Amino acid sequence: MRVNPDTGEAMKYASFAVVLMLSIPVAAVEGPPTLNLMPVPAQIEFGEAAVEISPNFSVTIEGAGATPRLRGGVQRMLRRLSDRSAIFFDNSTFLQLEGRSMASMVVTAGREGELFLGEDESYRLTITTDGIALQAATDIGALRGLETFLQLLSLDERGVTVPEIAIFDEPRFPWRGLMIDVSRHFMPVAMVKRNLDGMAAVKLNVLHWHLVDDQGFRVETLAWPKLHEQASDGDYYTRAQIHDVIDYAADRGIRVVPEFDLPGHGSAWLTAYPELGSAPGPYEIERSWGIFDPTIIPTIEKTYEFLDAFFAEMAELFDDEFIHIGGDENNGKDWLANPEIVAFMEEQGYAGPLTLQRYFNERVLAILTKYGKRMIGWDEIFEEGLPKNVVIQSWRGRESLFEAARLGYSGILSNGYYIDLIQPTDFHYLNDPLPADSPVTPEEAARILGGEATMWAEYVSPETVDSRIWPRTAAIAERFWSPGRVRDLEDMYRRMDHMSLTLEELGLQHERNRPMMLRRLCQCRNVAALEVLLGAIEPVKVYNRGRLREHTQFSPLTRMVDAAWPDAGPAREFRWAVERLIESDFMDEDDLDAVHTALVTWRDNHAALEATLKTSPALADIGPMSIALTEVSTIGLEALDLASAGTAAKRDWLDLRLDSLDKARESYGQTELMIVDPVVDLVCAVSLPASLTAEGCQEKDAVAVGGDD
Amino acid sequence: MRVNPDTGEAMKYASFAVVLMLSIPVAAVEGPPTLNLMPVPAQIEFGEAAVEISPNFSVTIEGAGATPRLRGGVQRMLRRLSDRSAIFFDNSTFLQLEGRSMASMVVTAGREGELFLGEDESYRLTITTDGIALQAATDIGALRGLETFLQLLSLDERGVTVPEIAIFDEPRFPWRGLMIDVSRHFMPVAMVKRNLDGMAAVKLNVLHWHLVDDQGFRVETLAWPKLHEQASDGDYYTRAQIHDVIDYAADRGIRVVPEFDLPGHGSAWLTAYPELGSAPGPYEIERSWGIFDPTIIPTIEKTYEFLDAFFAEMAELFDDEFIHIGGDENNGKDWLANPEIVAFMEEQGYAGPLTLQRYFNERVLAILTKYGKRMIGWDEIFEEGLPKNVVIQSWRGRESLFEAARLGYSGILSNGYYIDLIQPTDFHYLNDPLPADSPVTPEEAARILGGEATMWAEYVSPETVDSRIWPRTAAIAERFWSPGRVRDLEDMYRRMDHMSLTLEELGLQHERNRPMMLRRLCQCRNVAALEVLLGAIEPVKVYNRGRLREHTQFSPLTRMVDAAWPDAGPAREFRWAVERLIESDFMDEDDLDAVHTALVTWRDNHAALEATLKTSPALADIGPMSIALTEVSTIGLEALDLASAGTAAKRDWLDLRLDSLDKARESYGQTELMIVDPVVDLVCAVSLPASLTAEGCQEKDAVAVGGDD
Repeated sequence: MRVNPDTGEAMKYASFAVVLMLSIPVAAVEGPPTLNLMPVPAQIEFGEAAVEISPNFSVTIEGAGATPRLRGGVQRMLRRLSDRSAIFFDNSTFLQLEGRSMASMVVTAGREGELFLGEDESYRLTITTDGIALQAATDIGALRGLETFLQLLSLDERGVTVPEIAIFDEPRFPWRGLMIDVSRHFMPVAMVKRNLDGMAAVKLNVLHWHLVDDQGFRVETLAWPKLHEQASDGDYYTRAQIHDVIDYAADRGIRVVPEFDLPGHGSAWLTAYPELGSAPGPYEIERSWGIFDPTIIPTIEKTYEFLDAFFAEMAELFDDEFIHIGGDENNGKDWLANPEIVAFMEEQGYAGPLTLQRYFNERVLAILTKYGKRMIGWDEIFEEGLPKNVVIQSWRGRESLFEAARLGYSGILSNGYYIDLIQPTDFHYLNDPLPADSPVTPEEAARILGGEATMWAEYVSPETVDSRIWPRTAAIAERFWSPGRVRDLEDMYRRMDHMSLTLEELGLQHERNRPMMLRRLCQCRNVAALEVLLGAIEPVKVYNRGRLREHTQFSPLTRMVDAAWPDAGPAREFRWAVERLIESDFMDEDDLDAVHTALVTWRDNHAALEATLKTSPALADIGPMSIALTEVSTIGLEALDLASAGTAAKRDWLDLRLDSLDKARESYGQTELMIVDPVVDLVCAVSLPASLTAEGCQEKDAVAVGGDD
Repeated sequence: MRVNPDTGEAMKYASFAVVLMLSIPVAAVEGPPTLNLMPVPAQIEFGEAAVEISPNFSVTIEGAGATPRLRGGVQRMLRRLSDRSAIFFDNSTFLQLEGRSMASMVVTAGREGELFLGEDESYRLTITTDGIALQAATDIGALRGLETFLQLLSLDERGVTVPEIAIFDEPRFPWRGLMIDVSRHFMPVAMVKRNLDGMAAVKLNVLHWHLVDDQGFRVETLAWPKLHEQASDGDYYTRAQIHDVIDYAADRGIRVVPEFDLPGHGSAWLTAYPELGSAPGPYEIERSWGIFDPTIIPTIEKTYEFLDAFFAEMAELFDDEFIHIGGDENNGKDWLANPEIVAFMEEQGYAGPLTLQRYFNERVLAILTKYGKRMIGWDEIFEEGLPKNVVIQSWRGRESLFEAARLGYSGILSNGYYIDLIQPTDFHYLNDPLPADSPVTPEEAARILGGEATMWAEYVSPETVDSRIWPRTAAIAERFWSPGRVRDLEDMYRRMDHMSLTLEELGLQHERNRPMMLRRLCQCRNVAALEVLLGAIEPVKVYNRGRLREHTQFSPLTRMVDAAWPDAGPAREFRWAVERLIESDFMDEDDLDAVHTALVTWRDNHAALEATLKTSPALADIGPMSIALTEVSTIGLEALDLASAGTAAKRDWLDLRLDSLDKARESYGQTELMIVDPVVDLVCAVSLPASLTAEGCQEKDAVAVGGDD
């Protein structure tokens, strides 16, 4: 299942007369040798020179893999190169790609790649004083290399250049996915397309399209038209739109795996066809979030006749080898409440709903197999005895994948990649589908196919969803593509921050929508103080948002919690600076300056924001967070004063401050203040030896190790 | 042709128990009594109260016009109301619109409106202490009223309220359009849809879709598939997408008029079907901008057989009563170079190409008539003898419309509304299709149907196009909708600035893409100094951009000129403040402060920007503008110093400064500095009496009256 790195024939250089070579050493590039590459390639060798991209830059495509897909990829690359550099290229660059002997860049692809699991995506990219060569076994591999080439582009005092470099690259895992839930909140085609572009930029290769859930059925279905007519509020993809998205994805070397969640999460199915319900109904589209009872009835033949016709159509509409059947979170209630279903279970000697669901899965599997499809589903579908070509997607955890692998089954990991839960990037990044010390044999390890980030859509709209996916998913993509040894957090954050700008080029809205949301909230233009506040707060994590305030499908997703970053950069930089400052015993002047400046900015922010908060009803719930930010920052500044005075704080000062800081952990507007822990560290650090016995200091230390806040 | 304001039956109030009434007077709202309404309604009467929008706000729709279109419009209104206010409404607001006796707002529509020219779009909106009532003769009129209702929403210290008010409103002109050119640069469906939302928000009712030009043929055509296959670079709308856009527009009460430009601008047609060319060919898609020779041959029957099949298909695909045939800018060269065409003209006794084009138009008109369509075309199609139901679109000017009107023909004005030419909003706003002193009879006046803003796409990409259309088109929309007496520029700019934020809600990118473009240019995050520079410069006007630098379809549209506002707010505010300051003899302290602050900010900006400019090759061409800004601002500050000293400047100082200021008019990076004129005014004002004879001062005064810079 691992990718074969064979890239075929020897390099043939064309003449590179038009490429100007500069003798400025690459060492002038700042930062570690990962440059701005994300994901980091498997192997990199650096040269000394920088190669200028000039207006007569041109590209030739060679080999049997010179497909329309690759031509399109090269044209998009050139478009982005021109857009980013503002270079006016010669027209011909865009028009006459082939048959040129004087090209600056030669792209060679051995054959047309196919969009199936395990296809060769490797490439070699060589930039030397002799020219630029990109070689790949398939056109898909070449597409991956074009993205790397764009990431090498430098715009600086030297002009527009790429470094002399030799890269060999291949993915660590063959299944690198992003799941997008379009049921809870419908996402228009434009959202899906711009995210496919983002996926391609970070070398993800599977769009897992969660098309059906309790809150809406999102595909036009000719066989059973009531599905989209009655269970979508009119928000569904037409067949033409599905084709359009699949083509768009294929042009970027991305597979599209549709998910039709069965037999639980059944409200939408059963709103349209209540006769398939395990309960008498009636059913309606679910508007709230959670696990609900509506479940398809598994004990009547009509169900399988229905699903046969359904999957016959979907198998033709979606051309990937896999169909995802969901299978998760069937609570069994409606089954156990139906005497006929209970009787069936007794007849068959089934111990309970789990066994009955196994029966259901086997029937569905038979249908999928008949239509030439492989089945994938969440943990719950797994049982010994299934054909070995079924794939398990684990939301439960790595251990269940290993267990399946031991029994010969392949799987992908999603546990730890739930980007809807607003956890910090490093938490996802350090979560490895296959850590070096995994208790598996090499054969079993090969069955760990990769993973998927999951964008569940309870708390996102088309306006906010990009900011939940990006840029964090770039780091997850690196986990799936790059060697497992690539784990430097500081370097990852540096590169992700740069990658975020690159992702913007593709039309992604993750950065640009935030100021717009702030303007709408205050009905004003000067949002600087709101931005400062956002630098220090984040949405509450995991499942707390729903616990703190009930939301439905119609609730506004336009408040500060929705504008807030999932992994606020200023707060993160502050935490790091505090950590280093304490390590240096308050001696490092850069860190002292950074910490002091941040605290002063935050302390003074409420004064700047107060008038806006008072006149903006949509900001009402965030006021206490602004006050807390001032209070916590004031305490932090007191600590700095004590540190500079050189006298340790007394126990009563410490206790009072720890008490205040503890109160600042309170959530308002479903957000939390991200600078409480580092300020606790500061007050504890300046209170030695008193802090050695203070509960707040110890407590904090015990918690801080985690990572999943 | 004018709209009939008859709104039918008497108001029936439902019970309004759930609407809380506050006794805060409406007078507390700042600004003139136009509030934030744009376009300004025909009649407004103000009350005293403010009505709170509470979480249990609800809407009922009544009358025979309670169509799915109106239901959709109400649901979108509620979505935006909730998004803007962040109110968590009761679910039922979105679900059970009808049959409620306790609704906060009653929407009554007399009948289903039809999307034809002159349909009734009037409405009455009454907000009193007894409740909210929106009444309209048609569902389309009700949609217009819903937009007004949203514009009345206030978010301030009183909470979320609408003012007590009674509005009667109807459009001044029945044809209020926006033309979007999708040939020069293709625009994806998502761009068209978000702009349809913007159009609906300002009550425009015609999307004129310029689908064909020399640079691309953008419609899938079953009859002649080579048109989209060979003349679009793959960038065309499928039939399904066309249907989708038409439905989307119809849901918003907007007609879609397709334009297929004929017989000139023919490169795309003839790339696909060279046998229809007047010259031997071969032809190719044009990549440059201008007027080109390729022209369809009018003298062979094959041309009309081709067009018959073509228009048969398009007449079915597009359901509007009009088809636009272009007809503009046929230079006649290829006709005169073809002996057979010349012979035909001689045979027929035609004086020249103009007469031949008349023949061609008559043949096309016969085809359109056969398929039940009315014809519209640019000035060039006009000739006496045409049927009176043909409509003329004038790019030449008002006079040619009046001439046509005198002969019984209807027309719309586009001259003066060319938003691609980067002229200031007030220039477009004061351009009236039918000024009060127009030399026409009432019957002739009724033939002036309205106008269209034209978004020609030589210098816009999907990324920048919204910023060229919005917010300026909101002011043009007001010209087409509101009474002609509404002409207060300051109030217009105030309302347009607010409207710009409202337009953002709809997904329009005109504000949010600018910082993203700046981040890409500097490959950095701190773009504050670039923003300051953008406040003082604008893209060059009219047709100067192409004169200053040759562009093609592939040139990057990502530089400062593309990020720059067409009507830069800070520069405009500065010009106004200078004007007032001089009028007050430098005594007005607010204006003095505003002018001084702006000049200091601008003077110091280059120091902040210098490092960025040095390291950003994509910013290279804008450097001189940053230096010029500092120089001009320094001169402005010298003038303020002289004013405060109370001594008039000498002639030699004045001459030197005027000379420097004149040099600062030089354009770099296709931008111009917008503060030169007011600084000239400042130095002249402080140089009296020397300035009375200084050429620069007089010259400036003579020029300043214009408006079209």
